[in-house]
Amino acid sequence: MRIIADCMGSDNGAVELLKGCVQAVAECGVEIVAVGKREEMLKVISENSLPTEGIELVDAETVIDMHDVPTSILKEKLNSSMGVALQLLRDGKGDALVSAGNTGALLAGGTLIVKRIKGVKRAALAPVLPSKSGYVMLIDSGANTECRPEYLDQFGLMGSIYMKNAEGISEPRVGLANNGAEETKGTQLCLDAYDLLKENKYINFVGNVEGRGLMLGECDVFVCDGFTGNLVLKTCEGMGKFMVDLIKELFMSNILSKIAALLVMGNLKKLKKRVDYKEVGGAVMLGICKPIIKAHGSSDARAFKNAIRQAVRFANGDVISKITDALEQQRIEAVATATQEAQTEERPASEEDNKN
Amino acid sequence: MRIIADCMGSDNGAVELLKGCVQAVAECGVEIVAVGKREEMLKVISENSLPTEGIELVDAETVIDMHDVPTSILKEKLNSSMGVALQLLRDGKGDALVSAGNTGALLAGGTLIVKRIKGVKRAALAPVLPSKSGYVMLIDSGANTECRPEYLDQFGLMGSIYMKNAEGISEPRVGLANNGAEETKGTQLCLDAYDLLKENKYINFVGNVEGRGLMLGECDVFVCDGFTGNLVLKTCEGMGKFMVDLIKELFMSNILSKIAALLVMGNLKKLKKRVDYKEVGGAVMLGICKPIIKAHGSSDARAFKNAIRQAVRFANGDVISKITDALEQQRIEAVATATQEAQTEERPASEEDNKN
Repeated sequence: MRIIADCMGSDNGAVELLKGCVQAVAECGVEIVAVGKREEMLKVISENSLPTEGIELVDAETVIDMHDVPTSILKEKLNSSMGVALQLLRDGKGDALVSAGNTGALLAGGTLIVKRIKGVKRAALAPVLPSKSGYVMLIDSGANTECRPEYLDQFGLMGSIYMKNAEGISEPRVGLANNGAEETKGTQLCLDAYDLLKENKYINFVGNVEGRGLMLGECDVFVCDGFTGNLVLKTCEGMGKFMVDLIKELFMSNILSKIAALLVMGNLKKLKKRVDYKEVGGAVMLGICKPIIKAHGSSDARAFKNAIRQAVRFANGDVISKITDALEQQRIEAVATATQEAQTEERPASEEDNKN
Repeated sequence: MRIIADCMGSDNGAVELLKGCVQAVAECGVEIVAVGKREEMLKVISENSLPTEGIELVDAETVIDMHDVPTSILKEKLNSSMGVALQLLRDGKGDALVSAGNTGALLAGGTLIVKRIKGVKRAALAPVLPSKSGYVMLIDSGANTECRPEYLDQFGLMGSIYMKNAEGISEPRVGLANNGAEETKGTQLCLDAYDLLKENKYINFVGNVEGRGLMLGECDVFVCDGFTGNLVLKTCEGMGKFMVDLIKELFMSNILSKIAALLVMGNLKKLKKRVDYKEVGGAVMLGICKPIIKAHGSSDARAFKNAIRQAVRFANGDVISKITDALEQQRIEAVATATQEAQTEERPASEEDNKN
């Protein structure tokens, strides 16, 4: 498997990303196409004595940074590391792409350079988060601020196919984010999306799920519009940081607590690993016709390696062809239903004709 | 100060609520009007040997429970403990009301029995949560699923007046919940609310605040629609529970970790208290013309006592008359502006007249 890695444009620079690539080659047995300014990458490799076996460097003239307008990826920044990486993916020069760069640009480039899967209305950005029952996909986490019910229905389908085939959950429970469990709860968008999800026979819809249920393991796919999803995701991050800071304070407050910290050091590290989203990888970009993973902007080597590992699961799971097939099947059925309905409408008239 | 306490309709029964009332009399120096089925309350008092000094019992025939339709408070459940308590509040028989019962019924009863403050478009339910910088009010947390920009603007104003006068924050920072910090971010509702909040000279508007900022202390009032607010609030609860469970697991995993637990027991209790919303009280119902606090449905004695203490701060802070004054002032200014505009439009015509 060949993974295209955009090695520029993150908060921590090319060093961490290239180290992540080296770790991925060693641990996941993949080949990496590392895209970036060649001189800069060669300098990092030499300064850090990084082994380059399994890593092919591809030069890009420039970098799209966090402040660039997303659509610049299509014009003046098409020759950036991200732009070049997206074109390599489109042209089949790798099986998946990982980038820790500008999220908006990656979405714009994914949609307009690599293109959406036929029938997908909107691509979504879907992080996989640690939860009480293992992991939960939050879809959408911010790609689509305003949504239509059909988008949410497709998010449920795409998320379900991903969690089944890439993460190995046999019948992923799809829940609709809502401010109450009852069927009658929520905004008009929720009510309409509920109806579509309930009728969607390609998923295991478990109904509305409240905010508590996200972390407490009530579903495997948590469907919401990107505005709500973004606030929910960032709230989790903030709450997690708030609590970790309090725990640190707790252990550093006096000599006894410092001794206690030594006694539970191993367990503390396990806990940190358990709630650390960087362990999972990045956000899955679903709806694009090739696998793309958005690694966190502040990725260190380990986080970038995990994002690459997630890209491998994404590609190995054959998620995209399964989404394509499901949508094709839905289209065929919709046509069949429409045809049947048209025939049913015609029948009374023809019966009338027969009588005459 | 006299606090009307609805002593029925919670998950834990009258015992915990009445114990909370007793604690409040002792600790806050208030009188309590305890409303509920008299026989049941007397039984609880006698079985638990509760002192009744400072507590007046008021009989109510029935109870509105969690499964009752909210509007039943206006009809067949008007004689419930909550219905009677709301009427006592309306009639000036107490300075504030605390209930741990059906939230929807309390909102409906507050709005239609006690009534809204003149000029308030929608009442909101606003819990005060622990955060890195102290406390933050989340307004609205679920009273209004679909909102208009004007509602959010008023939520900002009411929340700011509450946090200043009841919680003692001199210039409360009002933030708008959004999926990005930039002024151009968010749904149409956010964009329109942003414009109103920015122009509102009665508040200290600090712009958009992302989900991370809620817990990390970026504002003192976090304004959002009730749908989003409910998901954010419940996500905090779920994330908090998930992490507390993991910490418990950590300390119970082996003999060393159990020793560590003993060493940090005192600090652990402090941490628990620090993140425990029950320490703050309940959700403030803002926009009603008398102070109402919604205590958590699963309130124990301590939580209910803290909700009563919060009701005292709410009443002592003179929050409602300050909201009333601010809205009246806004109305006067709106009229003045409109009059001035009308005169400006007339002037060219009159100058024309003078020439003739």
